[in-house]
Amino acid sequence: MRATMLSSQSRELLKKVSTATLTTVLFKRGLRNVFIQGIFLLNRAAPRMVGEAYTLRYIPAREDLDQLGAFEGRGHPQREAIEACPPGQVLVMDARRDASAATGGDILMTRLMVRGAAGIVTDGGLRDTPTIERLDFPVYCGARSAPLNLVRHHAADSQLPIGCGGVAVYPGDIVVGDAEGVVVIPASIANEVAAEAASQTEFEDWVEARVKEGRSIFGLYPPSPGTRAEFELWRKSKE
Amino acid sequence: MRATMLSSQSRELLKKVSTATLTTVLFKRGLRNVFIQGIFLLNRAAPRMVGEAYTLRYIPAREDLDQLGAFEGRGHPQREAIEACPPGQVLVMDARRDASAATGGDILMTRLMVRGAAGIVTDGGLRDTPTIERLDFPVYCGARSAPLNLVRHHAADSQLPIGCGGVAVYPGDIVVGDAEGVVVIPASIANEVAAEAASQTEFEDWVEARVKEGRSIFGLYPPSPGTRAEFELWRKSKE
Amino acid sequence: MRATMLSSQSRELLKKVSTATLTTVLFKRGLRNVFIQGIFLLNRAAPRMVGEAYTLRYIPAREDLDQLGAFEGRGHPQREAIEACPPGQVLVMDARRDASAATGGDILMTRLMVRGAAGIVTDGGLRDTPTIERLDFPVYCGARSAPLNLVRHHAADSQLPIGCGGVAVYPGDIVVGDAEGVVVIPASIANEVAAEAASQTEFEDWVEARVKEGRSIFGLYPPSPGTRAEFELWRKSKE
Amino acid sequence: MRATMLSSQSRELLKKVSTATLTTVLFKRGLRNVFIQGIFLLNRAAPRMVGEAYTLRYIPAREDLDQLGAFEGRGHPQREAIEACPPGQVLVMDARRDASAATGGDILMTRLMVRGAAGIVTDGGLRDTPTIERLDFPVYCGARSAPLNLVRHHAADSQLPIGCGGVAVYPGDIVVGDAEGVVVIPASIANEVAAEAASQTEFEDWVEARVKEGRSIFGLYPPSPGTRAEFELWRKSKE
Amino acid sequence: MRATMLSSQSRELLKKVSTATLTTVLFKRGLRNVFIQGIFLLNRAAPRMVGEAYTLRYIPAREDLDQLGAFEGRGHPQREAIEACPPGQVLVMDARRDASAATGGDILMTRLMVRGAAGIVTDGGLRDTPTIERLDFPVYCGARSAPLNLVRHHAADSQLPIGCGGVAVYPGDIVVGDAEGVVVIPASIANEVAAEAASQTEFEDWVEARVKEGRSIFGLYPPSPGTRAEFELWRKSKE
Amino acid sequence: MRATMLSSQSRELLKKVSTATLTTVLFKRGLRNVFIQGIFLLNRAAPRMVGEAYTLRYIPAREDLDQLGAFEGRGHPQREAIEACPPGQVLVMDARRDASAATGGDILMTRLMVRGAAGIVTDGGLRDTPTIERLDFPVYCGARSAPLNLVRHHAADSQLPIGCGGVAVYPGDIVVGDAEGVVVIPASIANEVAAEAASQTEFEDWVEARVKEGRSIFGLYPPSPGTRAEFELWRKSKE
Repeated sequence: MRATMLSSQSRELLKKVSTATLTTVLFKRGLRNVFIQGIFLLNRAAPRMVGEAYTLRYIPAREDLDQLGAFEGRGHPQREAIEACPPGQVLVMDARRDASAATGGDILMTRLMVRGAAGIVTDGGLRDTPTIERLDFPVYCGARSAPLNLVRHHAADSQLPIGCGGVAVYPGDIVVGDAEGVVVIPASIANEVAAEAASQTEFEDWVEARVKEGRSIFGLYPPSPGTRAEFELWRKSKE
Repeated sequence: MRATMLSSQSRELLKKVSTATLTTVLFKRGLRNVFIQGIFLLNRAAPRMVGEAYTLRYIPAREDLDQLGAFEGRGHPQREAIEACPPGQVLVMDARRDASAATGGDILMTRLMVRGAAGIVTDGGLRDTPTIERLDFPVYCGARSAPLNLVRHHAADSQLPIGCGGVAVYPGDIVVGDAEGVVVIPASIANEVAAEAASQTEFEDWVEARVKEGRSIFGLYPPSPGTRAEFELWRKSKE
Repeated sequence: MRATMLSSQSRELLKKVSTATLTTVLFKRGLRNVFIQGIFLLNRAAPRMVGEAYTLRYIPAREDLDQLGAFEGRGHPQREAIEACPPGQVLVMDARRDASAATGGDILMTRLMVRGAAGIVTDGGLRDTPTIERLDFPVYCGARSAPLNLVRHHAADSQLPIGCGGVAVYPGDIVVGDAEGVVVIPASIANEVAAEAASQTEFEDWVEARVKEGRSIFGLYPPSPGTRAEFELWRKSKE
Repeated sequence: MRATMLSSQSRELLKKVSTATLTTVLFKRGLRNVFIQGIFLLNRAAPRMVGEAYTLRYIPAREDLDQLGAFEGRGHPQREAIEACPPGQVLVMDARRDASAATGGDILMTRLMVRGAAGIVTDGGLRDTPTIERLDFPVYCGARSAPLNLVRHHAADSQLPIGCGGVAVYPGDIVVGDAEGVVVIPASIANEVAAEAASQTEFEDWVEARVKEGRSIFGLYPPSPGTRAEFELWRKSKE
Repeated sequence: MRATMLSSQSRELLKKVSTATLTTVLFKRGLRNVFIQGIFLLNRAAPRMVGEAYTLRYIPAREDLDQLGAFEGRGHPQREAIEACPPGQVLVMDARRDASAATGGDILMTRLMVRGAAGIVTDGGLRDTPTIERLDFPVYCGARSAPLNLVRHHAADSQLPIGCGGVAVYPGDIVVGDAEGVVVIPASIANEVAAEAASQTEFEDWVEARVKEGRSIFGLYPPSPGTRAEFELWRKSKE
Repeated sequence: MRATMLSSQSRELLKKVSTATLTTVLFKRGLRNVFIQGIFLLNRAAPRMVGEAYTLRYIPAREDLDQLGAFEGRGHPQREAIEACPPGQVLVMDARRDASAATGGDILMTRLMVRGAAGIVTDGGLRDTPTIERLDFPVYCGARSAPLNLVRHHAADSQLPIGCGGVAVYPGDIVVGDAEGVVVIPASIANEVAAEAASQTEFEDWVEARVKEGRSIFGLYPPSPGTRAEFELWRKSKE
């Protein structure tokens, strides 16, 4: 599933394009369901998030298994994932869109940040959010939710394909987040999507400037052939 | 349906009364369902919103019709509505309360602002919200939602009666927004509602001041005849 | 149901522990459903909230009973509750998790604050939220919702056991709120929970500091015997 | 709240009118929210249900209180209600519209039937429904739900005003059920509503016969003066 | 939008194929969202439903407009639609998926049946369902719901594109219903879809028979070249 | 996780006890979340379902992967699961509680039945339900849903722990279904649960008979020591 590597150039480009633009570029390739639903960014001043998906899967908790002792020693999948998610990658958690309990808290988020992860996304809740939202780290969740995960969630395994917020996430997919939300890009097309999105962003910035000058959107957005030529001229003049 | 025009005086009054007070004034006239549910104001520092409703209606998208080419040329109802909504009016979109995709983005919102619209309300999503929330323009939506409208919504027509957030909106109805949300006032009673709401606001501000001084709400809110007289005296003393 | 009193020391401790930590301490006692779901704090700069629950119950409104006249004179349960909730206590409202209409507004919230209440929690809506969120007072609600309560809610009675956001609340239970949300502690165990939570907080703060220094969570959180000893040493060194 | 008694004649009339017709008659009196939402009739061959409301209220369960021992001895509100609901009355349960656990099972339903109750309505679940649906007894619930009530619901008290399926139910209100669902009639107007509904039913049956003969609904439903006269003639001819 | 007419042969074919098979045939043409969600067939013994869509649109009710008088005289869109929907067509109602009130009752359904309509689909409620479900007529709705439409719905207009149960419905689209639910086929491809679905049905019936004989689905469903040849032979042998 | 085997005697006992009784027996062991929510039995005349769980997991579909070709050849997890689920076991599918598309149809259900599976449970939809409900086979699903799984679901893997209708299901857990729904029993306690449930059923049948004779539930259910003795006497008299 993952022959292609995200180039460092693509990584930089993806930090500068919006998730909105990415959905358009992916739509052109037939992908309509790429935006993780029902989550929000805790710290709106956090850096942009770009990285490969490292996945963790929760199933419903069961009272005989999910007691505090479960965390002890090695082997608990949530704790293992926090220590295993490689630097530059994004931990993505499938909590069945149930945010009535947490899937992590400030200590785990801090550890993830210190280890160099690119960010974290969960469609469950997070606890200690008043602390987390002060970290210089992009964290997306479904709700501020104090209850510990054991009351609802059982960490089952990691690095399997999952669903998060209604979107398929395969390990290694490229996960991009801005203040609007998070988009998932299949690994195999991430470099070309990055390039096209950067180019589209340049065009849309130019359009936005024209609109601010008072121009009508007819013939401008989407562009008529004349507008397209005008933009190309402007772009060349900049070089 | 729209004999009455909103006077410029009423327009100014409505900018100073809260949506909460308006729901009370409308309740007295038998209208119980006037507050658009499930939306929020993107830029909480935006100016107050008052204007006639200019409506746009979305139906579910269908893959053969809703491709990127749909936006080209003239005639796409969403693009037409952006260019047609008169200055001072509010574009109100019916997206069937489905905010899993956008019903507009920063370029369209900017164009609407530049054209002098009073604001925009949608019960669908909006994209490019990190940009939109920096506009000095009141924008209300159901969610920050990056996916382009084509994945879920098809702009069908404009200036028909619609539902938005569970509330009936007829073209020309007066739409008022504050940081709490948006109220819809039938056009025919907008001037009288504005006057009564302004008067009610003056009374409630006086009550709030009394409460801050430590007075009990019994006999104050709602007012006993004595309290009412006390307020009238105070009001006259101010003139 | 309420032999135990919350000591003033416990009250102070509870102002310093997070709702997240409290859910863990309560989980150890077999209580899994203690976090009120679906509410948020209006003024995130408000003081911490700790106090005994004073309950108010709403049922669905009925048009013949729920007219504006209902508020007049004495005896309306909502107005009575505002004037009766003792200083230091928290008014908790059961609005059947229906936030499509308000369960109170700025005048009532101000009166409650002036009377010395510790805060208010409702799983319904609140109106005048732009004003309420500027009060130096912890207010939690399900939504910003302008419609007056009469369109949806009928205040039925007070000081009965209720549900709020899916959690049982008995009059006198200890209600604790931070910027994440609100936890309900059975009155009979509140003092011991406060003590254990304070102790747990001290440990977790120490853990957080270690994580920031780069330490792995394995053996640290939860702590191995060695880590536990290390912490105890550190704690003693501080005294 | 309950000066008026339902006459035995009204009781018989209400067994013959539909809940649909009752909502229309109540709408004419300004009551719009009278149909209990989200429930269904378990045994569609059961007799029609008409009776005064006897109410029971559940709040969320709490693990320390809601153990199997709670049912032992006297005093458990659910058990007490089953034995206290008078013959001819309808037990109406407020389970906060949460049907993920039961609010009763076959033994309690059978006891209620044997004691002569007119029926039961709950917006929670019921268990043992394969047995209950064979009883000759009208039982309405939100779902077939095997889990015992203790996992979710705590029976709190009885004969207080409650909400059921979004509708206010006061003890003594007249509760009428058919295969479509359940309508709640304020006690004070039940006799007049019964009479008007019976009369309306006679007219609608006549209309239905005319429509089956091929007549257009224009001028028929609602009736023009001519149609009204024609119906009156027909009615007199029957006497 | 509607150059193509549904041939009488296609109409007969569509009465014999399942909605399941139709979704597969439409999926091959890129159409993924064609099954109306959240509705059910009232009378499971009714004849199959095939016909062109005749659309009716509801918006939220408003108390000043939606009173009983609204039905009087001509011109009420709901009553007009009942009398205008041509024989052989299906009345499809957009009630914003809100089934808490009715969008029609037994008299209107009977009239529609007598006039020769092919059926009716609404994503709102229907009232008088105990009567409707005895009609020999296919009726699909979102819920059994006694309240008259005026408490929630305002009939706005007919023969415009609408959404029904999350699916786009254009006037003239071919609407097919079986005991599972309802599929919408764009008019322009209805004849070819009918032919392909009939052919697919013949194959699947043959597969089902083979499975009942004990054959594995590997190589059978979907068919290997060998299986395909075997089926073709069988088909020819039948002619 | 699975040392214990379900004895054939336990299997027979479990076919005779209700899911309601099982939830009580499991509650005594601290297990509160064992009833699969939001599903129903398609063929209410089907035999009782008892068997070990064989699990299949779906994640959200992605357009580039989930095309019709995916089913061809070997290796598609859904097709493999149908052929691999051992006789006597229950196929349990995790479709993220999304029933807007199918997770199987009549051909697969028939194959499963022919192969000797004990039944199937999915919290997604099923298609061809008019055919499936005529099979002499217990099939539980979230909805009748015609769309093929590819529009929403991607079969990811089998025999991993999953969630189904909000309940944890581990491969080998004992899955029991009646006309009310489905309960999941941890494998390790299945034999003891079966025995206790059978005993409890005998007692409850005796109680039900007493209630039908007119006895009060006080002292009967739950039983007083006297009642318990009376029952034991009756039980011995039967032997």
